Amino acid sequence: MKIGFLGTGIMGGPMAGHLIDNGHEVYVDQSHRVPDTLREKGVYLCNSAKEVARQTELIILMVPDTPDVELVLFGEDGVAGGLSDGKIVVDMSSISPVETKEFAAKINKCGCKYLDAPVSGGQVGAKTATLTIMVGGDQDTFEMVLPILKILGQNITLVGGNGDGQTCKVANQIIVALTIEAVGEALLFASKAGANPEKVREALMGGFASSKILEVHGERMITRTFAPGFRINLHQKDLNLALANARKLHIALHNTATAQELFNAVAAQGDDDLDHSAMVLALEKLAEFQIGK
Amino acid sequence: MKIGFLGTGIMGGPMAGHLIDNGHEVYVDQSHRVPDTLREKGVYLCNSAKEVARQTELIILMVPDTPDVELVLFGEDGVAGGLSDGKIVVDMSSISPVETKEFAAKINKCGCKYLDAPVSGGQVGAKTATLTIMVGGDQDTFEMVLPILKILGQNITLVGGNGDGQTCKVANQIIVALTIEAVGEALLFASKAGANPEKVREALMGGFASSKILEVHGERMITRTFAPGFRINLHQKDLNLALANARKLHIALHNTATAQELFNAVAAQGDDDLDHSAMVLALEKLAEFQIGK
Repeated sequence: MKIGFLGTGIMGGPMAGHLIDNGHEVYVDQSHRVPDTLREKGVYLCNSAKEVARQTELIILMVPDTPDVELVLFGEDGVAGGLSDGKIVVDMSSISPVETKEFAAKINKCGCKYLDAPVSGGQVGAKTATLTIMVGGDQDTFEMVLPILKILGQNITLVGGNGDGQTCKVANQIIVALTIEAVGEALLFASKAGANPEKVREALMGGFASSKILEVHGERMITRTFAPGFRINLHQKDLNLALANARKLHIALHNTATAQELFNAVAAQGDDDLDHSAMVLALEKLAEFQIGK
Repeated sequence: MKIGFLGTGIMGGPMAGHLIDNGHEVYVDQSHRVPDTLREKGVYLCNSAKEVARQTELIILMVPDTPDVELVLFGEDGVAGGLSDGKIVVDMSSISPVETKEFAAKINKCGCKYLDAPVSGGQVGAKTATLTIMVGGDQDTFEMVLPILKILGQNITLVGGNGDGQTCKVANQIIVALTIEAVGEALLFASKAGANPEKVREALMGGFASSKILEVHGERMITRTFAPGFRINLHQKDLNLALANARKLHIALHNTATAQELFNAVAAQGDDDLDHSAMVLALEKLAEFQIGK
């Protein structure tokens, strides 16, 4: 299948590579940096997003934020200019649910289908093709695109209509941030009270406190392994989506707000390129105490 | 073995029953209510905690809070008065880590050993003998008591010295409360944004947001199943231990404080006997919106 892939960075690069490895013809926009590995695999080079859209049946986006998606889709020489009836646009970036609904409506007006399909699992998930994919769109389009998504990930769920994939991703990032804070507060408490945080983590792993975050990020806090992983500045972007949309939706997200403030505090020290488990540094700084010390 | 069991309520009752079922002679204080099921199993009746301690080698406590443990151990006709060299006291209640160290020291002065061994897993875990047990004390005493603990639970960890078992239990309750709030904020966000919370929960179960709480309490929030389970007023007691000890330890637990306030808000509506997943009612009330509606 002829697939356009716009955004071939640390996530999109390996993802596009998997598509080529599985026999698809992948087209990219060479006005942005194209990784050498993709060139070596024989990626097709175009001069704009518009030309990519013209050459392909399915166009995947994997860019940082809402304005980037808007620019790639509707900017000068953007995807919209190269679309014709029956093509499919799949946005795998993590962006605003509200704007996603507007983008989908505009793409539909071009006679094309739209899926929002943000992912969780980070760089490792992209490399090992084990991403969790949360999809918003109609059932028929979902089923058409599913074989392609299966090349990229493992847990693939059609959550609902357009926007619901992005909503689900925001919910994911809320839970992950707040569980990191949960584990951080608990391990700080235990360490400061004189217990061995490694033993505490071990004791808690079997029960109701057990989570993927306690397992992976709890260990990072104890062994002080804060190389990313998933960078704090990306999580700040995601919690900003949560808090900005919560304001529009008239709901109060107390602990999401606090978690964002703690990320901000770590960023204030110049450490926003550390893994998000480094949120614990802000808790520790206030207590003038380090877990496991 | 002759075992004293002080506190035969909804947790202690079934636990004492398991000990009798496994061939032990269990002694209780009949000045408090003794469940009929224990009488039928042939429990031995004494007239005070002191007499229970005198008759047995190992004395287990399972009472609500720190002052209750203090009263049973050191009050009039308490355990301390019936102790003699070489006996072992095991406190399985969930109480303050700081006071636990004092209680242990006083019991040691009577020539006896002390373990703090609080549990997680609730009423169901007590009935099915699948409790998680977090132990503080010395290695030798732990190994002597381990065969008895194995009758009551499954994940049994010696966390460290006296007090560390209680510290670990507090850490457990911090994580559980904050993960409930994480799931509550995320599902409220998703529902209010128009997504189906059931689908969102399903999509998140495979990834980094997955936890025992998302699985069990997330489902409770969606299906509105707030019959306990673990009651809010018990979790309030545990977070009070967390916050009071955090103050003594000079550490700030931002989200633990907020979670307690949300429990307080539910309690203000007279609902503190609901399951702790009902914390979400406070989030919903502020938003005038119900998950899954």
